[in-house]
Amino acid sequence: MDPLRTSIVDAGPTHLRVRGHNVLELMRHATFTDLIFLLHHTRLPTPQERRIVDAILIGGADHGPGAPSCAAARLVVSGNRQSPSAAVAAGVATIGDEHGGAGTRCMELIATGIARAEGDRTRFAAEAARLVDEARQTKARLPGFGHRVHVDIDPRVDVLFTLARTEGLAGKGIEFARALESAVAERIKPIPLNIDGALAAILHDLGFRPLVGKLLFVVSRVAGLSAEVLEEYTREKPMRFRFDVEYDGPPPHPDGE
Amino acid sequence: MDPLRTSIVDAGPTHLRVRGHNVLELMRHATFTDLIFLLHHTRLPTPQERRIVDAILIGGADHGPGAPSCAAARLVVSGNRQSPSAAVAAGVATIGDEHGGAGTRCMELIATGIARAEGDRTRFAAEAARLVDEARQTKARLPGFGHRVHVDIDPRVDVLFTLARTEGLAGKGIEFARALESAVAERIKPIPLNIDGALAAILHDLGFRPLVGKLLFVVSRVAGLSAEVLEEYTREKPMRFRFDVEYDGPPPHPDGE
Amino acid sequence: MDPLRTSIVDAGPTHLRVRGHNVLELMRHATFTDLIFLLHHTRLPTPQERRIVDAILIGGADHGPGAPSCAAARLVVSGNRQSPSAAVAAGVATIGDEHGGAGTRCMELIATGIARAEGDRTRFAAEAARLVDEARQTKARLPGFGHRVHVDIDPRVDVLFTLARTEGLAGKGIEFARALESAVAERIKPIPLNIDGALAAILHDLGFRPLVGKLLFVVSRVAGLSAEVLEEYTREKPMRFRFDVEYDGPPPHPDGE
Amino acid sequence: MDPLRTSIVDAGPTHLRVRGHNVLELMRHATFTDLIFLLHHTRLPTPQERRIVDAILIGGADHGPGAPSCAAARLVVSGNRQSPSAAVAAGVATIGDEHGGAGTRCMELIATGIARAEGDRTRFAAEAARLVDEARQTKARLPGFGHRVHVDIDPRVDVLFTLARTEGLAGKGIEFARALESAVAERIKPIPLNIDGALAAILHDLGFRPLVGKLLFVVSRVAGLSAEVLEEYTREKPMRFRFDVEYDGPPPHPDGE
Repeated sequence: MDPLRTSIVDAGPTHLRVRGHNVLELMRHATFTDLIFLLHHTRLPTPQERRIVDAILIGGADHGPGAPSCAAARLVVSGNRQSPSAAVAAGVATIGDEHGGAGTRCMELIATGIARAEGDRTRFAAEAARLVDEARQTKARLPGFGHRVHVDIDPRVDVLFTLARTEGLAGKGIEFARALESAVAERIKPIPLNIDGALAAILHDLGFRPLVGKLLFVVSRVAGLSAEVLEEYTREKPMRFRFDVEYDGPPPHPDGE
Repeated sequence: MDPLRTSIVDAGPTHLRVRGHNVLELMRHATFTDLIFLLHHTRLPTPQERRIVDAILIGGADHGPGAPSCAAARLVVSGNRQSPSAAVAAGVATIGDEHGGAGTRCMELIATGIARAEGDRTRFAAEAARLVDEARQTKARLPGFGHRVHVDIDPRVDVLFTLARTEGLAGKGIEFARALESAVAERIKPIPLNIDGALAAILHDLGFRPLVGKLLFVVSRVAGLSAEVLEEYTREKPMRFRFDVEYDGPPPHPDGE
Repeated sequence: MDPLRTSIVDAGPTHLRVRGHNVLELMRHATFTDLIFLLHHTRLPTPQERRIVDAILIGGADHGPGAPSCAAARLVVSGNRQSPSAAVAAGVATIGDEHGGAGTRCMELIATGIARAEGDRTRFAAEAARLVDEARQTKARLPGFGHRVHVDIDPRVDVLFTLARTEGLAGKGIEFARALESAVAERIKPIPLNIDGALAAILHDLGFRPLVGKLLFVVSRVAGLSAEVLEEYTREKPMRFRFDVEYDGPPPHPDGE
Repeated sequence: MDPLRTSIVDAGPTHLRVRGHNVLELMRHATFTDLIFLLHHTRLPTPQERRIVDAILIGGADHGPGAPSCAAARLVVSGNRQSPSAAVAAGVATIGDEHGGAGTRCMELIATGIARAEGDRTRFAAEAARLVDEARQTKARLPGFGHRVHVDIDPRVDVLFTLARTEGLAGKGIEFARALESAVAERIKPIPLNIDGALAAILHDLGFRPLVGKLLFVVSRVAGLSAEVLEEYTREKPMRFRFDVEYDGPPPHPDGE
């Protein structure tokens, strides 16, 4: 087989470098968030960038065992106590466009809108309206808007956008996300940006690629999944979940089979 | 079904708290590493504890696409481009006692040795020797020792133990791990502590439960897996892996079937 | 939580039925393929339908450890020997539109074409040509065509279509699939139907929903993945995979970090 | 990298063979159960062996969405609608010693007991009693006994053992399993063999290795998981699961963070 090529890690018996940075030096001086930024970007973050990425990672980490990702991880612990990593893996697989993973599609939406406006802020409202109308026509759900618990406002969005502003990092991504929010309110009904949408706007402004929207949520949520798995192992018995089930299929077959 | 109980996250329409701490405040002031510590421990870390946990998380994050966890994640991207989270999940499932997950069993070994010595440091050498002899009798591999690349010494171990000492966090866990290393060298042959072993010793000293040894490696490695998945998506074509295969089973069946 | 509703299984202390059929009776008289058909359809198969579904399931089961799904499963065994099911799971996650999972999109293509032709066979050639042209315009790959090993012809396709004909089950699905194949040859170049495409045509004719195209391949391949996992456990050592890796990223960072 | 070796599949541009058998011929004449047997054994089954393996595979396939494996698969569909295979994978990962996977450990138990008795049937009762006593001393749960729904008797066990007898396949495995059941009833309390235990006894008598106990259950259950995933996609909305959660951790932190 051809060698696997990578531009991320240079590992050998004498060295271990991530994007050219010596891992031993990073271990001595950097934070895990620095490394996460470096792994997904091309360079280390500034202190301001580190601050906002820390906030993003904290905001997505855990919503308790009722979130589908956490519940799936706990179910695996319940049936398979041989592999804690398999439980975390099942939780990770639960993350998709419908659960925590809307950041990627929202980043694509923001990038499309800004590109159509050719970066001209005066055209953001018009392009946002056009995107909302297009979504309505195809009956597509707008990624990054609405939350089943935080119906009116997701307070984490405000924290993130305030941080972005005070750290001097608010750019066109946030501006276009707010334009989308206004267009949604005008043309459909008020549906607030959710944390996926806020994350998408900020990651756009930090120069990340759209796929990072979903992946950074995964990195964040794994911290919570891991803690949920730890608690399920140490507090709960195997096979404890007992769902009520209602059968509404065909009646018993007459011939007994 | 009975409600799912949790002692970690208290989430509601008006609040989101992790072990009593307001997540909005954590987003404003804490680091992701603080949150990881809080999720797996009972409290936030001191600055010294945060420093060493950052070093641990950085040290385990990525060893390049040749590591089984990374290769598995990239294979999934290669065949299933619909779900980046499924690729990360496959990488996570690859982590076991044989790959990155020895921290848990090493923490159990250290805890057993210290308990048998009743915490008395003068008895560590004797108890370490006893554990090594027991492992030899059952032909069990000692978890936390040896590395297929870092044969002589894993430089990350030195960085971690130096940090633990300078931050004033080196305790009985590190001491017992070194006692084990000496006993291995005397009774078998010199096999250095690897990063799983170093992580185990330090996490013991920080008061974490043994299962955290494996789980913190998962949290750490997911940062790397996520970046590998991003690179595979953005640089490589689907279905690019072409392994050489050698068949050594029964010959063609005579009757054609 | 609301009860989970299901139209498939009625399970209780005194009975276990699948779509109304008593499982004990099925155990006594039916085959596993009967049950697979029943689970994904609304009824048991005829003997002719059972024959062709057996052939489909056999055809997709295993292509050796070089297939990405098998390689991923073996990598998990290599690193995580605590959970054979986690290894099978990683292999399953590798199945996507690019690897074994094209059956679903091909079934959708066939259903679209037949619907556009309003079921009129004389219009199949024209509608197939239109679909091929649409795919060319959007540069989309036609699902169900081409194979990296079976470049000229996939002999399993011929076996399946012959069986469908001799069992009296060949319908519009197969006819439209052949029309697509001709249109591809005329308008692009000869690219043979692959097994995903053949499976799609036949499953359409048997009345399955498009999603079954991907799912039946999963059911089929799991038989092979399971055997590969068994062999990896019983013949091979942990951590045996050694990929060559080539780093082509940034050079060492000047400041040592 | 060294070539991957396999004794199962010989695949090339001109042929595809499983353990020497031409897959095209198998597609024409064999059943999926034949292939599953061949993949996990060294040869094709006799008609009697096929019958009993069909019964085993049917018995384990699906217990409805309340089983942890099915619930986990449905949760993944609920959050991640991009990858049906990821949902099946999460269901598979849920299978462990505690859920469907006890067959392997029960096969090991049976093999141990028969080996200790040196195959002498007159010694089975004594060796079974010894194994039960050993389990009681270490407080280990006996694999293959008890079921949370089928408390008194699992009717599938009777069907399987009757089939084994009428097909002339009942051997020492079944006999030793029954000896274990009697020893459990005498020394602890009546706990009936469950389907894992019945499967273990029969697979022992058919000459399968212990790991097959768990793997054949996976193969079987995937048929059900796949159907559950299909139903969740086609009948249910994303993010529909709403678990009740009860927080019993530390109270709100006084300093607001």
